[in-house]
Amino acid sequence: MTVVAAETRIDSAAAASALIDVVAQAESGAITRSDALMSVTAAHLEAILHTQFDGGGEVIATGVPASPGAAVGRVYFTSDDALDADDRGEDVILVRSETTPADVMGMQVSQGLVTTRGGLASHAALVARGWGTPAIVGAEALVIGDSWFTVGDITVNRGDIISMDGATGEIVLGELLTSTGEHPEAFDTLLDWADEVRAGKLGVRANADTAEDAAVARSLGAEGIGLCRTEHMFLAPERLSVVREMILADTPEREAAALDRLGAAQQSDFETVLAAMDGAPVTVRLLDPPLHEFLPSLTELRIAAATTGLDAEQNAQLEAAETWAEHNPMIGTRGVRLGVIKPGLYAMQVRALLDAAAVRRADGGNPIVEIMIPLTVTREELALARSWVQTELDKSAVPDGSITIGTMIETPRAALCASELALEADFFSFGTNDLTQLTFGFSRDDVESRMMPAYLAQGLLAGNPFESIDQAGVGRLVEVGSWHGREARPGLKLGVCGEHGGDPESIDFFYRCGIDYVSCSPYRVPIARLAAAQAVIRNS
Amino acid sequence: MTVVAAETRIDSAAAASALIDVVAQAESGAITRSDALMSVTAAHLEAILHTQFDGGGEVIATGVPASPGAAVGRVYFTSDDALDADDRGEDVILVRSETTPADVMGMQVSQGLVTTRGGLASHAALVARGWGTPAIVGAEALVIGDSWFTVGDITVNRGDIISMDGATGEIVLGELLTSTGEHPEAFDTLLDWADEVRAGKLGVRANADTAEDAAVARSLGAEGIGLCRTEHMFLAPERLSVVREMILADTPEREAAALDRLGAAQQSDFETVLAAMDGAPVTVRLLDPPLHEFLPSLTELRIAAATTGLDAEQNAQLEAAETWAEHNPMIGTRGVRLGVIKPGLYAMQVRALLDAAAVRRADGGNPIVEIMIPLTVTREELALARSWVQTELDKSAVPDGSITIGTMIETPRAALCASELALEADFFSFGTNDLTQLTFGFSRDDVESRMMPAYLAQGLLAGNPFESIDQAGVGRLVEVGSWHGREARPGLKLGVCGEHGGDPESIDFFYRCGIDYVSCSPYRVPIARLAAAQAVIRNS
Repeated sequence: MTVVAAETRIDSAAAASALIDVVAQAESGAITRSDALMSVTAAHLEAILHTQFDGGGEVIATGVPASPGAAVGRVYFTSDDALDADDRGEDVILVRSETTPADVMGMQVSQGLVTTRGGLASHAALVARGWGTPAIVGAEALVIGDSWFTVGDITVNRGDIISMDGATGEIVLGELLTSTGEHPEAFDTLLDWADEVRAGKLGVRANADTAEDAAVARSLGAEGIGLCRTEHMFLAPERLSVVREMILADTPEREAAALDRLGAAQQSDFETVLAAMDGAPVTVRLLDPPLHEFLPSLTELRIAAATTGLDAEQNAQLEAAETWAEHNPMIGTRGVRLGVIKPGLYAMQVRALLDAAAVRRADGGNPIVEIMIPLTVTREELALARSWVQTELDKSAVPDGSITIGTMIETPRAALCASELALEADFFSFGTNDLTQLTFGFSRDDVESRMMPAYLAQGLLAGNPFESIDQAGVGRLVEVGSWHGREARPGLKLGVCGEHGGDPESIDFFYRCGIDYVSCSPYRVPIARLAAAQAVIRNS
Repeated sequence: MTVVAAETRIDSAAAASALIDVVAQAESGAITRSDALMSVTAAHLEAILHTQFDGGGEVIATGVPASPGAAVGRVYFTSDDALDADDRGEDVILVRSETTPADVMGMQVSQGLVTTRGGLASHAALVARGWGTPAIVGAEALVIGDSWFTVGDITVNRGDIISMDGATGEIVLGELLTSTGEHPEAFDTLLDWADEVRAGKLGVRANADTAEDAAVARSLGAEGIGLCRTEHMFLAPERLSVVREMILADTPEREAAALDRLGAAQQSDFETVLAAMDGAPVTVRLLDPPLHEFLPSLTELRIAAATTGLDAEQNAQLEAAETWAEHNPMIGTRGVRLGVIKPGLYAMQVRALLDAAAVRRADGGNPIVEIMIPLTVTREELALARSWVQTELDKSAVPDGSITIGTMIETPRAALCASELALEADFFSFGTNDLTQLTFGFSRDDVESRMMPAYLAQGLLAGNPFESIDQAGVGRLVEVGSWHGREARPGLKLGVCGEHGGDPESIDFFYRCGIDYVSCSPYRVPIARLAAAQAVIRNS
């Protein structure tokens, strides 16, 4: 089963020629530019933007489409095998039950990712979308063995070639030709018109964690970064060991030393991101995930302890993994809660960011930094976090007033108590992924591949609320939060940085709520620009 | 640190004499009955109701007070050791890192329970409150070894005597004398006055899963059961094996056979509960927890697989545990979602309940059954669940209209979309525990023992929102849900069955929201009766 509607599968050549035709008609005056903008759909742009199968081939399995684009490559099952294959010059499709930070290097060299477990919020999906790597997750029909996977009575061995389409979730045996995803001039013309219509009404930013992502986003028309996730900067293998040192530190001195090393690495990352987005706002979210995500798997450590035994370092890791293990990590010690428990962490991040901004300014750049506090639930919590930032600001060379401080609105309570939070915030950014998880009580990793198909098939949900915002429930919280936030603080800047920021129907809703900008993954930016213009036209 | 305010520790003799004095004054006409009711606090009743330490003794550690009452006994670390000690006639305090269904038999024979992990929603806390067994959870200072625990430089060995107070979370070395918890006649007089004041305005029911609980609740003045959790009926060892058969069944026939056996067991449980509450309403919640809670621990199975190896049954259990494992079980495949995926389960439960009601009626009883669907998020979902119940009703001998069907309101979406849900519901019951978890994004098991102390100490939370309802956030959802529910369906019955149902401040709030009844653990019923009367007086 696929959660993408059939209508999103449009042949890319047909889409391009339809778009060229519409733009020509508007240029000749046969139709208005508004008519032209309203006649093109997200599916057209999607078809033009991403590589896709040219057709044919037997679909052997379908998973959750997690990151669009088509890829062809040889199947490997471990990060090490992927790296070896890449060394041999092979194209790789990495197939795993699920991925963890330990797989990042193998993921980096892969043309495509397939997992058999997890949903759109899984590690594999998030990393893949960040990199623009095609990915399919939760392909439960695949049974992975030692050096093969089976699906029904088909066996695919290590090294066999498969093709996958991350926009549809389809996996095909063998090598399918893919179209290239180049776009015609009319594409840019149409989007220029869209920008004119939405100027000053609804901005479009991108979620980008690296300078490369930022550059792609900018080339696709993003007006800034609405969400720069700092945790991905912690996941590169050489950083991960320092993060672990920080977690395992048994003295304040060792913790401080590890934080200093992380700070230096983060600063250079921030410099490159700020350079790539020079003159445009960059919203940096302080560390969000629970700490055990940076440790080896507790279960694997326990098994190793019971079989091969552990060395001293592994023993320390086991103890830390047990300390930081949680029953429900999604609603555990994450976000600003981590900041409260490990105050040095956020201070380090803020310092690194301010130092990066100072370096950029010294180099003649114009960095515009917005610092965002995740998972806030009370005003007092936000005031405390704000005070940490202010402390670093007071010590820094950054001119006063050049940095703004805001918060994610991603818990129902934050939306309901927006008038309180607004008193401590220069901006709100609605994190509609987590807000949807909490409003429904849907752990996306658990329900999306297991329960959602039955719910959609039986009409128990009108649609997947992670794709298009649930206006009656989650959307009501966005409305209430926007309204009360602006009431308490007129002119409060409002953004959305969940994946809904790239969904046309949701964008229309956000515009009606008075949101200032949406932020989506770089490859959705053109779609968001068009949808934002359509929302302005539709509601004017 | 303790999350119970210091003022709740009142000497029981002093509390009893204060209460006797106040009642005497009202009886002599020196003060009004209202004055008498308003001058007694929950802390007075609590001190009178529960056994407590008579004083003295060195407190060696403090955990989260999870189930009130004091207990003295010898320390044992496994369910088997507890059972053996019980056979020898010893009093037992069972100390575990956390408990699972496999520990239930040992828990049953223990005078008190202590865990080092988990919060008020942990297995240990829930089971203990259900049974009225004193319990302390999340006592993190205890380090458990093979046959001892240490706390600081103190070592307590297997068989040593400790005392514990589940109302304060305190653990004391050796045997402390405890007062008995008998209550004076004035106690009953005062509560009779309370009942007169609140009659027809705010009812008090109990959360009770067994006939014993129901009898205790009734003796303490409960007017019905607001929450009968059917999962506890699955946890007795002889049932658990049948539940596992049901989960592991590889054919529909085997599943049906296991369900039939479970149904027979449930029917006899329901008969006893309905008998104990004859003539009073009993709200039965269909199965709520995720299925893996009924399976052995996945980690332990994996370790066994890697070391001693698994037999065929254990292999099947491992496969099932892997299938049903979830990243965030609290927001995973639970409640009605399970009903959608395993429709036979809810049908079996409804059949057992209807058959039990028929038996009771044939015996001259007057069973009043309310069937409650957990974790609903959409109207369509509730309509489907309602249709399952109706199908069984149509087949049964129970007179039409004698059974009502309603839903928990425990997700933010259910509260926000109450006008939709009300169209399919005869009653709403606000499950404010889960509603608090979701509104804040607080996994109670994770945050309550780890993060909450720092948050309370630093004033980031005004109080523990699991103790007294967060009126600005969670309370707003109760208000909105009540309002919209009643607007869509005038006269809709509204209850609260979270633990807030036993908290005086929350009870006052619920009364102002127009709630018809609160439901709390049996031992909180007298406190809720008093608080309900106080709410009526205060708001009249």
